[in-house]
Amino acid sequence: MPTNRQIVLAARPAAEAKAEHFALREVETPALKAGQVLVRHHYLSLDPYMRGRMNESKSYAQPQPLNEVMIGGTVGEVVASENPKFKVGDQVVGMGGWQEYGVVDAEVPGMLRRVDTTHVPLSYYLGAVGMPGVTAWYGLTQIIAPKAGDTVTVSAASGAVGSAYGALAKARGCRVVGIAGGPEKCAYVINELGFDDCIDYREHKDYLSLSKALKQACPNGIDGHFENVGGMVLDAVLLRTNEFARIAVCGMIAGYDGAPLPMVNPALILVNRLKIEGFIVSEHMELWPQALEELGGLVAHGKLRPRETVAQGLESAPEAFLGLLKGKNFGKQLVKLV
Amino acid sequence: MPTNRQIVLAARPAAEAKAEHFALREVETPALKAGQVLVRHHYLSLDPYMRGRMNESKSYAQPQPLNEVMIGGTVGEVVASENPKFKVGDQVVGMGGWQEYGVVDAEVPGMLRRVDTTHVPLSYYLGAVGMPGVTAWYGLTQIIAPKAGDTVTVSAASGAVGSAYGALAKARGCRVVGIAGGPEKCAYVINELGFDDCIDYREHKDYLSLSKALKQACPNGIDGHFENVGGMVLDAVLLRTNEFARIAVCGMIAGYDGAPLPMVNPALILVNRLKIEGFIVSEHMELWPQALEELGGLVAHGKLRPRETVAQGLESAPEAFLGLLKGKNFGKQLVKLV
Repeated sequence: MPTNRQIVLAARPAAEAKAEHFALREVETPALKAGQVLVRHHYLSLDPYMRGRMNESKSYAQPQPLNEVMIGGTVGEVVASENPKFKVGDQVVGMGGWQEYGVVDAEVPGMLRRVDTTHVPLSYYLGAVGMPGVTAWYGLTQIIAPKAGDTVTVSAASGAVGSAYGALAKARGCRVVGIAGGPEKCAYVINELGFDDCIDYREHKDYLSLSKALKQACPNGIDGHFENVGGMVLDAVLLRTNEFARIAVCGMIAGYDGAPLPMVNPALILVNRLKIEGFIVSEHMELWPQALEELGGLVAHGKLRPRETVAQGLESAPEAFLGLLKGKNFGKQLVKLV
Repeated sequence: MPTNRQIVLAARPAAEAKAEHFALREVETPALKAGQVLVRHHYLSLDPYMRGRMNESKSYAQPQPLNEVMIGGTVGEVVASENPKFKVGDQVVGMGGWQEYGVVDAEVPGMLRRVDTTHVPLSYYLGAVGMPGVTAWYGLTQIIAPKAGDTVTVSAASGAVGSAYGALAKARGCRVVGIAGGPEKCAYVINELGFDDCIDYREHKDYLSLSKALKQACPNGIDGHFENVGGMVLDAVLLRTNEFARIAVCGMIAGYDGAPLPMVNPALILVNRLKIEGFIVSEHMELWPQALEELGGLVAHGKLRPRETVAQGLESAPEAFLGLLKGKNFGKQLVKLV
């Protein structure tokens, strides 16, 4: 069995997450038991939710245990199998974590899924046709539920969730406006992802200024919003909501480090009769097949071609992850392990 | 035709509403046209939403026009009629405003409704079996939608909305915990309204302290909350919500005067996968008959006997209203005009 390199959570950040909170270690891969398969990971997914797991306090689901392999989605290839349902060479997606190899109890439902790479590149199963894509799908279709002609917005528009959201919203006849950081990302959101407009939040010193830009980009107001960030962006969007607008809250990345960020004017919930709903996509597994089918179709037909930022080698994962939290990535952040 | 006394909005408050923003005037009652009826108002309803209407800025529906009769619900008796559907002596509920007499175009649907006072006192049609009661019903049944055994909370628990909410929640097998201002109100909420517990927010200097008290009163957490106030109370409640809790936002009275009050920790929307929804009960008229039937039944069977605070005479309305905004009333605030 091969030697396996892993990255574990070495310490919990008190405020900002740093490289020192992670540690690399090398272990021997145990022999497979009946029902298990050994997966060689080709790509590791880095996602904002991981920052929440690093805290001890109540957050998404369970905290990441200390000195254990960091949680994370992975795609790869079966290299050894003691399970009749998987054979060597199968391409699979799972939650292998930050390591080069994963030993998977493939009998447990949901642990490992075989995927078809004829029309969809393997890495996309971690992004557009994976958890981030389904996240966009859930928020848009199950919470915002727009009708054709609605104006819908999304923060972190150039990212994995935002890019899928744009394609899904355009497919429903919406005007879709993104919010992203920097002129390069905004140009990409408009020119490559097909958004109707995109606002660079870095050009705005406060939420009132950002809100004015939103007014121009959304002349008919905002009917639905998908929140990946929180803070100033959410405050600015709320000021531009139409009555009965729906806000899907998927991320509050702006508040992960340190003190909670307030919402400036919650009275708008009442004034505009808003519905604001938080969700975690892994709690709605029954809808994944339907979502993945639509997302796979969009990719196969060239309507969703998201960009990826790929860091090379397991040892690059912590820096790539910290960059992601600061918005340094461009599109889906991956780590290539082979 | 009788001389009519009216109270009009004389000026818009820049911050705190004061008596000087109102003016009393006397006018002649015009002769009735075909289809109209003249109603002598017995009671005028005072409600927190009126404060929102006094502002020029976007708030609930339209602002109250300057130098026109203040908007408000009224119950009274028909004293003259040019409408075949109403006869002198009919007891009616309508939106007559802050005046002693109202000339009503009784042909217009929803302007005037005849009520039966056999089992329900006339004044209750402004409270428990009127707009405040339906407000509680809508938030509880349409947004919170609790199941038996759920813990549900409400701010301003001793008021017209809160008292109806308590009876409706108990009828559904919930544990219901109120939040109110002062020991006398809390004792009333528990002993007379039948709540399981009530917390005096005045005993708490900040939301963290109030939240600790909520933890004791709600040992299984909070599954649903009805917000009449906003600010510190909402912040405290959010900290104690269970996953998938529902928050019906009906009032943000705490923020009506002056600067908006922030929500301290909106990330809880995500962490606990909350649904927060604002509503205005007048936008859901199709549900009123169903709600009024249940509320009338609770009153007729002695399960809802809300207290009223009655100011005497039209000229007392401004002070009574300003007192309501400061929580000086006890139960439904009315002005008796006859």
